[in-house]
Amino acid sequence: MASLPVIVVHGGAGNIPRARESMSSAGVREAAKAGYVCLQAGGSAMDAVVEAVTLLENNPTFNAGRGSVLTQKGTVEMDAIVMDGRTLASGAVSAVRRIANPVQLARLVMDKTSHLCLTAEGASQFARNMGIPEVQEESLITEYSIMRWRKNLSPDANPVESHMGKMGTVGAVAVDLQGNIACATSTGGMLNKMEGRVGDTPCIGCGAYADNKLGAVSPTGHGEAIMKVTLSRLILFYMEQGKSVREAADMGLAYMWDRVQGRGGVVVVDPKGEWVARFNSLQMAWAAAQGGQLHYGMYGEEHFTRDIQ
Amino acid sequence: MASLPVIVVHGGAGNIPRARESMSSAGVREAAKAGYVCLQAGGSAMDAVVEAVTLLENNPTFNAGRGSVLTQKGTVEMDAIVMDGRTLASGAVSAVRRIANPVQLARLVMDKTSHLCLTAEGASQFARNMGIPEVQEESLITEYSIMRWRKNLSPDANPVESHMGKMGTVGAVAVDLQGNIACATSTGGMLNKMEGRVGDTPCIGCGAYADNKLGAVSPTGHGEAIMKVTLSRLILFYMEQGKSVREAADMGLAYMWDRVQGRGGVVVVDPKGEWVARFNSLQMAWAAAQGGQLHYGMYGEEHFTRDIQ
Repeated sequence: MASLPVIVVHGGAGNIPRARESMSSAGVREAAKAGYVCLQAGGSAMDAVVEAVTLLENNPTFNAGRGSVLTQKGTVEMDAIVMDGRTLASGAVSAVRRIANPVQLARLVMDKTSHLCLTAEGASQFARNMGIPEVQEESLITEYSIMRWRKNLSPDANPVESHMGKMGTVGAVAVDLQGNIACATSTGGMLNKMEGRVGDTPCIGCGAYADNKLGAVSPTGHGEAIMKVTLSRLILFYMEQGKSVREAADMGLAYMWDRVQGRGGVVVVDPKGEWVARFNSLQMAWAAAQGGQLHYGMYGEEHFTRDIQ
Repeated sequence: MASLPVIVVHGGAGNIPRARESMSSAGVREAAKAGYVCLQAGGSAMDAVVEAVTLLENNPTFNAGRGSVLTQKGTVEMDAIVMDGRTLASGAVSAVRRIANPVQLARLVMDKTSHLCLTAEGASQFARNMGIPEVQEESLITEYSIMRWRKNLSPDANPVESHMGKMGTVGAVAVDLQGNIACATSTGGMLNKMEGRVGDTPCIGCGAYADNKLGAVSPTGHGEAIMKVTLSRLILFYMEQGKSVREAADMGLAYMWDRVQGRGGVVVVDPKGEWVARFNSLQMAWAAAQGGQLHYGMYGEEHFTRDIQ
């Protein structure tokens, strides 16, 4: 039953190793709950998605903030975006280094500049001017990300690992009690990417889109495929033509597969609070909070429900 | 009368100072002719748009390559993108420095990497690996761009000059004899922008989109507004719903004005070779070549035609 407020989060599509499943599921549930608490207290959709994505960035299980995958050179370069459906305002950062919470920096780009996106050293400069502390790069790197980076550098690299590496990204979409809609997406990008590679995440219409009149989308998956079909805006066009959130999400993912053989997943909301988490990868860790209930799942049509304590 | 091949180029929307009008008009005509010669010789749409945009980058009259506007700090940071309508492949660079022809580097990103966009120092690194020579920053800077930069730093900066400064960008769309469609866009960005600012140009769906099934768009104007409405993809959605190139372009520009009070212009082609150059700024220097004729204009409904020598 659709109702407001609502928040839906994802922790990335792909193949999640068995040993990391429970951490992933717990992480997205915690993020959805935190965003929901914010919304119930009258917080804005923007506040809620930034809160949820901040928790996912801080959680080393996910490929965003701490726990980001490494570039070819072993560095961490992150992309993030936020979008406000009231005004179509947006802020993004690309290839930013040594920042704990890129999603918060993206929000500052939206709130404090006349621009929509700052990249690389220019984004770092802006962070310094805003008083955002620079963190040690090591604080963002986990043993797991080093292991995967090494594995993928070896000549007999396992393509499944590689494939999985393409898939991490975290995101959230929400509608608040006032009916305002927002979304946020954050990522460490693609495993063993070239330095300076910018994926779909900071690219408006690809890695996020929110419009109070239509809804919001946060995607995850093969970034280059998401970009080629401008997946987030595409799904909202289907909704503009009268499709439900579920139909639109499935049509968008099917189109991405048909045209460019890309896989991924999305979380989507519409202005009434209808929501969906859909993917054509093996898994996507997702959770939603609405009407006092927490919904979550990871495989195919899996959908668990429990009361929010 | 629509026919193939066709190429349409623009040299930026905005307020072109009277003294620069004839240079702007000559520049876009020369670029359209060069692209057309390439297409008539059997060249691909991609070859033609890169050829045309390269000429516009080399021409100091336009805000792209040599002649780019300066950042707040007086540096030159450029964005460029290409897109191939056959496969939806695309390549882009953002905030790249000391490169004579960003559009050619964007094409190399498409052709030689698995990524769609490289930014800042990572893009420079890639350029070095590809053997693209680094140029002196001074070679990209004109006396005119220094004059405008100084003028805008002063406390009594002229808002008209500022506004105009937001508007430069060059681009081209083409359909070749095989019916393949491509587009390219290149810019020095926004006058006195923050270092690291990324505008619409390298953002697929915003600063360019090409799909053999629908057509292609290259926009110019206020980058942040173009991004908020993903202008290029938006216009192609209207065409997908049966609108003509002219109707779709006008609807897209009207939508951008209504939703975010943004002005700009676009060149658009469809698979049959129908084309249009439309804008809601005071001026946009544009030229098109088709059926042995050169079309061009700069103000409102202005449309001159002459035979191509």
